[in-house]
Amino acid sequence: MSARADLNGKNLISTQDWTVEELEILFDLAAELKDAKREGRPTSLLQAKTLYMIFFDASTRTRNSFETGMTQLGGHAIYLSPDRMQISHGENAKDTANVLARYGDAIAIRHCEMGVGNPYLNEVAQHAGVPVINMQCDIYHPCQILADYLTIREQFGDTRGLKLGVAWTSAPNYVRPLSVPQSLILMMPRFGIDVTLAYPPEFKLMPEIEVQAKANADAAGVKFEISDRFEDAFEDADVVIPKSWGPLVTTRDVPEGLRLIEQYSSWRCDSRHMALGKKRLIYMHPLPADRGREVTDEVIDGPQSVVYDEAENRLHVQKALMALTM
Amino acid sequence: MSARADLNGKNLISTQDWTVEELEILFDLAAELKDAKREGRPTSLLQAKTLYMIFFDASTRTRNSFETGMTQLGGHAIYLSPDRMQISHGENAKDTANVLARYGDAIAIRHCEMGVGNPYLNEVAQHAGVPVINMQCDIYHPCQILADYLTIREQFGDTRGLKLGVAWTSAPNYVRPLSVPQSLILMMPRFGIDVTLAYPPEFKLMPEIEVQAKANADAAGVKFEISDRFEDAFEDADVVIPKSWGPLVTTRDVPEGLRLIEQYSSWRCDSRHMALGKKRLIYMHPLPADRGREVTDEVIDGPQSVVYDEAENRLHVQKALMALTM
Amino acid sequence: MSARADLNGKNLISTQDWTVEELEILFDLAAELKDAKREGRPTSLLQAKTLYMIFFDASTRTRNSFETGMTQLGGHAIYLSPDRMQISHGENAKDTANVLARYGDAIAIRHCEMGVGNPYLNEVAQHAGVPVINMQCDIYHPCQILADYLTIREQFGDTRGLKLGVAWTSAPNYVRPLSVPQSLILMMPRFGIDVTLAYPPEFKLMPEIEVQAKANADAAGVKFEISDRFEDAFEDADVVIPKSWGPLVTTRDVPEGLRLIEQYSSWRCDSRHMALGKKRLIYMHPLPADRGREVTDEVIDGPQSVVYDEAENRLHVQKALMALTM
Repeated sequence: MSARADLNGKNLISTQDWTVEELEILFDLAAELKDAKREGRPTSLLQAKTLYMIFFDASTRTRNSFETGMTQLGGHAIYLSPDRMQISHGENAKDTANVLARYGDAIAIRHCEMGVGNPYLNEVAQHAGVPVINMQCDIYHPCQILADYLTIREQFGDTRGLKLGVAWTSAPNYVRPLSVPQSLILMMPRFGIDVTLAYPPEFKLMPEIEVQAKANADAAGVKFEISDRFEDAFEDADVVIPKSWGPLVTTRDVPEGLRLIEQYSSWRCDSRHMALGKKRLIYMHPLPADRGREVTDEVIDGPQSVVYDEAENRLHVQKALMALTM
Repeated sequence: MSARADLNGKNLISTQDWTVEELEILFDLAAELKDAKREGRPTSLLQAKTLYMIFFDASTRTRNSFETGMTQLGGHAIYLSPDRMQISHGENAKDTANVLARYGDAIAIRHCEMGVGNPYLNEVAQHAGVPVINMQCDIYHPCQILADYLTIREQFGDTRGLKLGVAWTSAPNYVRPLSVPQSLILMMPRFGIDVTLAYPPEFKLMPEIEVQAKANADAAGVKFEISDRFEDAFEDADVVIPKSWGPLVTTRDVPEGLRLIEQYSSWRCDSRHMALGKKRLIYMHPLPADRGREVTDEVIDGPQSVVYDEAENRLHVQKALMALTM
Repeated sequence: MSARADLNGKNLISTQDWTVEELEILFDLAAELKDAKREGRPTSLLQAKTLYMIFFDASTRTRNSFETGMTQLGGHAIYLSPDRMQISHGENAKDTANVLARYGDAIAIRHCEMGVGNPYLNEVAQHAGVPVINMQCDIYHPCQILADYLTIREQFGDTRGLKLGVAWTSAPNYVRPLSVPQSLILMMPRFGIDVTLAYPPEFKLMPEIEVQAKANADAAGVKFEISDRFEDAFEDADVVIPKSWGPLVTTRDVPEGLRLIEQYSSWRCDSRHMALGKKRLIYMHPLPADRGREVTDEVIDGPQSVVYDEAENRLHVQKALMALTM
């Protein structure tokens, strides 16, 4: 467990800010920490250090994986929600950043409000003298995608030449952020993975993200394709991640968004879709999945599903991230 | 501090699932950990381990005793309330169990809703690869009763031949669960204690629990008696636990339940009742007690009361439980 | 890091309860702990110990500085809010104090309700066998003032003969407690600092506090003066702390209080006021400041402002306090 010096103090707001080499260091350390946990070896790399976790939106996996990870590394994570902080008395990002940076060792933030979350993270990062970690914003969810990649690497070893399908699914009740598919299409091509992104026309992602994803794919010499056929994400794929998001580029009106989601209720992953992929096709989802709407129980509970491995890997990549940057 | 191996991974949902011998191991370790705390000796038995505490209902003693206990054992406990988790977005027990079990080392749950709490605990236990601890459900409250027994053992040494009175009391404002009296009548006879349970007819406990309690008493060769006279719980008793619960077997209608509670407002423990017991009679209550309604200040603050010892013992039995199972 | 024995078990509800010599021990340890943190030296003085933090009112700095401080000292702090505790089911201070004292090692409380907060702290202190720390009540905010003094000592070395101006400012939206200015005027004179307190007539502090402040100043042979001119707090000053509070001695009616605050909206610190002080004048504020209303950005973000040092020092004085008393 070495090679920490170079990345000390580095933010993770988007994986775009990290080189492939830096990300490889992180994945290697994550694998090492995973082994250490399995074998019960202590990993007190962050003894007595504090991570602040500011949640503008609810969470299970994210909070628990970060807080458990800090405990396993010898430190402590503090769960903060803005309604119990002076942020609700109008404290600005600069003051929050400066003060927390004087006390502790890193600041992690989840803030998914469109047009507000990412600028808030950047403003905190500008003022904090400690690393800022994106626990999901309106644009990016880098920690989820790091876990996804570690899972794929575990399943396939070399990831070059694999095909990943990212497919929109129809899930009711609330409008989910764009951050998961956007972070997937940005990072996966950089590791030699062909990506097919499938969505109904109203569910396009932010144009500048799609452009950047294409540039990343071109630079890596792999394919990045967009389709409006659900099946295209599955055909000949090695990995598929069918996941709902809102029509946020088309409309920010919530009732209209929910109506559009219902219009494509047939976009649900079942075993017929899984049969379109390669024989070794695996099913992934960041959870929580809307069972019955996004995916059938047969698939998510079936032998091709690696969703619990994927959830577990949140812990390991985040521990590596914290150990490297804090 | 040895003998841990056998109980590693074991759930505690009801004390019925533990043999008397297993419970004796737990009580011995609890006493040992209590000595260690008094003497300031470190007890880092769960270094860097994480306990998840999911509270569907509020708590002081339970949360603080578990969280402080984990700190004293070198680990950390995370306080979770469902309204801030994805459970409120419809995540099912299986997913919660699987994910938390991948990150941390045990899951403790308080869920007192009639007909819902205990099944939820069992479902989590079925899927979690880590121990599940019942912090109180609609049927059982094993941790409270373990603390009660440790307190009795400290007061009397050998518990065989003692008489315990469990008496219903009238406390207003809300309908309390059945879990405390039910767990008391199940476990205490197994340690050679005669039990008299007194309640007004509408406040009977779950029939299958009363049947199991009688079977436990018969197997141990001690008495288990039910009475509708408050005084019967006190007469000739060594220990009395007067405590309110709701008429939940009779009705789940809350206004009707509260009306029935008021109808028996004379069921309150005062010094005249205490005088009916043996000279060495002690008064216990899991707290918070409704002073003036369940018990007079004279009794709960008097020399026969051991309520703070009883509250303290929550810490020690739970530390033993965690050290043995996690 | 020695000299702990004498202060073990001591409460901090007001700095009045501590001698100047005791406070000097605390400041010396705070400086020592600050050095240790800067140099990355471990300071496990409170290994496996637990601090309970009960917040009747929201907080950022206070919670995070205490919780981070406990982690840095090897222990753990538990954040408690009464709405999630049995306090909301009517548990009295005596039971809360007795139970928490059996589990953990100190109880810290923030409770700012006029006429209620300070008595609650005293009642807990009367029953708890562990130290009680005031995290701000309706009368006192000792931890803030300890941080303020450490900051002044860092800036000036010897504090004897300095002049401190404490000036009321006009900040809208809610009525702030009297605890900061009251604690300032009580403690600063004891360290040889002349104090000028400036406020509009309706914003006088509690009469008994002003009398005690004068007695403290007389005993120390320094000046304590009250003025109704904002500028008097700045003229010839070394340190100025312009800070809003409510007209709580005049009225507890909130709309009337807010109206009075607006009446003096010209009481705002800007660079012209700063020019009235000594050349080395520093600006302090406990944060969060209402930028634009209490102070201009130019001043609070300018070279004379030490507000982040002041916020940081909360951490160090509180760590010293905990290490000495717990």
